[in-house]
Amino acid sequence: MSIIAVGSLAFDSITSSAGSRERILGGSLTHFANAASYYSRPRLVGVVGEDFEEKHWNFLKTVSSDATGVETLKGEKSFFWEGYYTQDFDNAITRKTELNAFAKFQPKVPESYLQDDYMLFLANIQPDIQLDVVRQCPGSRLTVLDTMNYWIANALDDLWKVIKSVDVIVINEGEARDLSGEYSILKAAEKLLLPNLRFIVLKKGTNGVMIFGKGFTISLPAFPVKQVVDPTGAGDSFAGAFLSYLDHLGTKEFGPVELKQAAIYATVVASYYVQGFGVDGLSGITRADLEKRQSEFKDISGF
Amino acid sequence: MSIIAVGSLAFDSITSSAGSRERILGGSLTHFANAASYYSRPRLVGVVGEDFEEKHWNFLKTVSSDATGVETLKGEKSFFWEGYYTQDFDNAITRKTELNAFAKFQPKVPESYLQDDYMLFLANIQPDIQLDVVRQCPGSRLTVLDTMNYWIANALDDLWKVIKSVDVIVINEGEARDLSGEYSILKAAEKLLLPNLRFIVLKKGTNGVMIFGKGFTISLPAFPVKQVVDPTGAGDSFAGAFLSYLDHLGTKEFGPVELKQAAIYATVVASYYVQGFGVDGLSGITRADLEKRQSEFKDISGF
Repeated sequence: MSIIAVGSLAFDSITSSAGSRERILGGSLTHFANAASYYSRPRLVGVVGEDFEEKHWNFLKTVSSDATGVETLKGEKSFFWEGYYTQDFDNAITRKTELNAFAKFQPKVPESYLQDDYMLFLANIQPDIQLDVVRQCPGSRLTVLDTMNYWIANALDDLWKVIKSVDVIVINEGEARDLSGEYSILKAAEKLLLPNLRFIVLKKGTNGVMIFGKGFTISLPAFPVKQVVDPTGAGDSFAGAFLSYLDHLGTKEFGPVELKQAAIYATVVASYYVQGFGVDGLSGITRADLEKRQSEFKDISGF
Repeated sequence: MSIIAVGSLAFDSITSSAGSRERILGGSLTHFANAASYYSRPRLVGVVGEDFEEKHWNFLKTVSSDATGVETLKGEKSFFWEGYYTQDFDNAITRKTELNAFAKFQPKVPESYLQDDYMLFLANIQPDIQLDVVRQCPGSRLTVLDTMNYWIANALDDLWKVIKSVDVIVINEGEARDLSGEYSILKAAEKLLLPNLRFIVLKKGTNGVMIFGKGFTISLPAFPVKQVVDPTGAGDSFAGAFLSYLDHLGTKEFGPVELKQAAIYATVVASYYVQGFGVDGLSGITRADLEKRQSEFKDISGF
């Protein structure tokens, strides 16, 4: 199989208690592909400005198998975000958002991407654009949607439309509560697991992840990390690692056994992800490192 | 082995989103013993007033193996607490606390309790009283201390004295941060794991539990519960189930394998505990029920 991923490419200026970085490569698509690349380098759909340099393209080429779906808009700059994290790392506080090229994003999935068996990942972007991409990819074996509280507040009708047209949603606890109107996470998941959905991935940050399917629940703690440096992209890295591992398994069933294996792997990848700024958490990390930490994770949390 | 437990016996009036109950049997010692009783009915040390009725004594007798260390103070009432939980169940908000007999609590561990091999559990009470009990029990094979933020704020010197004289401390995330001055839970645990401590139990409520030992870490998620009814006593129930299971294992090593097994069992007991008011979460629950949920827990979180 292969993975088609649609999302943002950006420059981020980030401050946390561990330091700060200026205009480093970021964006949901970047983090997704970076984390996926150990097992399945995705085909990318995105948009950048003319300030996207050779080194950035080179990075994208390293972590993807095809970037012909990434468009450069003339006379535009790339999406820019500046923000900081408070000590608890729970919320990013935005200082500046410049959408730039991203404001004109009209994803076109190249015909060549659609030739073989594929999964589709829709990173957190405007729901009506996500819906348009879903329509461009009718052959997707598993379509996975990420979203955020902003769209719940500002584009709820469109968001429900796209939720009703995908197979999987990836959300956090607050979003699950807002979308369902239920405080209990199990009740929220029960309400949100619509007939079309195969399962829901509930991200809990430092408290791990849960997966709710029809007739099964999975709950894993996070891998304990002594010092979080930068949580930016942690959710996208989890999604990238998770889908790439399902691809690697070659499964077409997506049952609880496969999903738990993929979630264990993705938990380990995400734990490395937050240990560096931007894409650096995985820099120099080999598959052997990931396997070693998986075995440590088993000692800590396996039974 | 056997367990000696020292703590409060109380009446609680509790309101939560699931309803309310007036003057039901509560207190840390009650909850600890109730949860321990499947595998090791503890010997109790506590104090009550003259309003402690036959039915309350009968309940204590059911869940303990010896209650001669529970004193009735003439002319006094039992400890009374009234409070409520907000929707998130994270914090109990106190409406009324009447210490009554508990204000005069001077625990005397009966000689008969000290005859054989025993563990000692010190529920959350004033640190200088805990220290006095430690001195009465020099033969304890494993002394476990529970505490709370109130003593960190109001009796810190005494609290450190008792921490330095026990084998295990049981705390929550906020308490670990307050005691250590470290935000990162791993750094906090590293700092708090004093030479005398065998391990630290870190309670994370609906996010599970971690255990930090010398050279090992354990992290487990909670068993997912659809509707929490009353979290009162959840921590004490975890401690009671945990120690009773260690007793049942007959281990004198308390290594990572035994601790993880005990923590899995205690997680399941605590998940039942919060499904009812006061002691009712476990009422009618058999060992077979606990084993069945342990097996469900393995499906959900085991690997």
